[in-house]
Amino acid sequence: MREHVFDQAVALELQAHGSFSGHTSPAYANMVGPFGGISAAQMMNAVLLHPQRLGEPVSLTVNFAAALDPGPFSIVARPARTNRSTQHWTIELFQQGETVMIGTAFTALRRETWSVDEEAMPECPAPEQVPLGQGPIPMEWIKRYEMRPIAGAMPKVWDGSGDTSLTRLWMRDNPPRPLDFVSLTALSDVFFPRVFVRRATLVPIGTVTMTVYFHADSAQLQACGEGYLLGQAQAQAFRNGYFDQTSQLWSQAGVLLVTTHQVVYYKE
Amino acid sequence: MREHVFDQAVALELQAHGSFSGHTSPAYANMVGPFGGISAAQMMNAVLLHPQRLGEPVSLTVNFAAALDPGPFSIVARPARTNRSTQHWTIELFQQGETVMIGTAFTALRRETWSVDEEAMPECPAPEQVPLGQGPIPMEWIKRYEMRPIAGAMPKVWDGSGDTSLTRLWMRDNPPRPLDFVSLTALSDVFFPRVFVRRATLVPIGTVTMTVYFHADSAQLQACGEGYLLGQAQAQAFRNGYFDQTSQLWSQAGVLLVTTHQVVYYKE
Repeated sequence: MREHVFDQAVALELQAHGSFSGHTSPAYANMVGPFGGISAAQMMNAVLLHPQRLGEPVSLTVNFAAALDPGPFSIVARPARTNRSTQHWTIELFQQGETVMIGTAFTALRRETWSVDEEAMPECPAPEQVPLGQGPIPMEWIKRYEMRPIAGAMPKVWDGSGDTSLTRLWMRDNPPRPLDFVSLTALSDVFFPRVFVRRATLVPIGTVTMTVYFHADSAQLQACGEGYLLGQAQAQAFRNGYFDQTSQLWSQAGVLLVTTHQVVYYKE
Repeated sequence: MREHVFDQAVALELQAHGSFSGHTSPAYANMVGPFGGISAAQMMNAVLLHPQRLGEPVSLTVNFAAALDPGPFSIVARPARTNRSTQHWTIELFQQGETVMIGTAFTALRRETWSVDEEAMPECPAPEQVPLGQGPIPMEWIKRYEMRPIAGAMPKVWDGSGDTSLTRLWMRDNPPRPLDFVSLTALSDVFFPRVFVRRATLVPIGTVTMTVYFHADSAQLQACGEGYLLGQAQAQAFRNGYFDQTSQLWSQAGVLLVTTHQVVYYKE
């Protein structure tokens, strides 16, 4: 069986000195450099593949310090502190000896406790009832995702007419692929820039930092299989060159899998 | 004039080899170790005081990897990548050679652009009309903040009766102190644990990671002076030992200064 294009893209090889080597993937190319979600997924994968890892991911923060050049890179993941059932990680991605990404992660052995989802999944039509989105921008990575926008799709007319940045969509890998922590990291970044939706105006943008909180464990992810996720994203503030985005990803069954946040640079 | 207790607590001294030395503050003591907000503020301060810093803080993420022991600590802040108008930082706090906190920060020279606050300040009674909160837990750090809860105060009866984790309160330093990035970092962490509010049940808790997005620049902070901030916090999911908290801090004039998120461990 041929390996899924996502698995090819996030593949890392452990080097003798303990770092990982990887390669940017043309299949996930963005306007400049790769899709941020795939780079964040590579950072997550370095922790997941680390021989000293304890537990499963609970949080990940990555900063996009510079544009990745097409080609090879190396990632150093370091368990900075290991406790009895938790572990704190620093992660750094290098190209030609220069830092291109930095990050931290937190992994833990989880125990069953009292639990409740306070943020309920909004009522939405079923994925089969929602047509595929038609992105006007033919970036390669967008073809790697099946997106069915329910509200706040990419504007069709750039006339400055937006009044909210809220987006809701059904989404999954294309072709479908069983969900895991690595693909969920990438899926947390598929939302079009909020400033496009809010302003119906195209301006240069770039994510500078992104945080993912994993509420689900691997059993809950496995239960999702190749199903759709409902994604919701909204900005809280646009101010002098930077806006934030706060997002939720639910399984089709309504389990809140991830809450995620990012800060995005915008020009003008 | 006597130095404000907050400035004493976050004071750092630059060492010959480039790291900073600091000391935990009994004035901001929590149940075990210091108030997390003061530790996060110390991490932020190490970046702000760094001789190579470019621009103002846009984001900060800190992980609480272990409990700080009362006493001295050192912080290493490193500009991992410096671009033309942006800078990405790694930050690490040590005690006795062991990592106790890790973090990253992003600073930038901001330019004036189209801006809008999408998340409007909720309508609330004026601070003068809201009585002071009466915390049942006599932790030292709580005395360093003036808190006037509007909704979702600390439960008075622990009977498991909660049904939402939403809290709104007016807050500022006690005694009042002009707002800056360091005090705003600490203020981002004053909210009582969401699990107490939601469950009306006391369980052991501890923040493991916290991210602060600064939407305001120093001029906007200066305009706040010693005024109150409106803080709002809510959890989105409580699941198997960890819950998230998503929060907003507005100036009394209604400017969204900060959006902030954290993951908190809870037992049972």
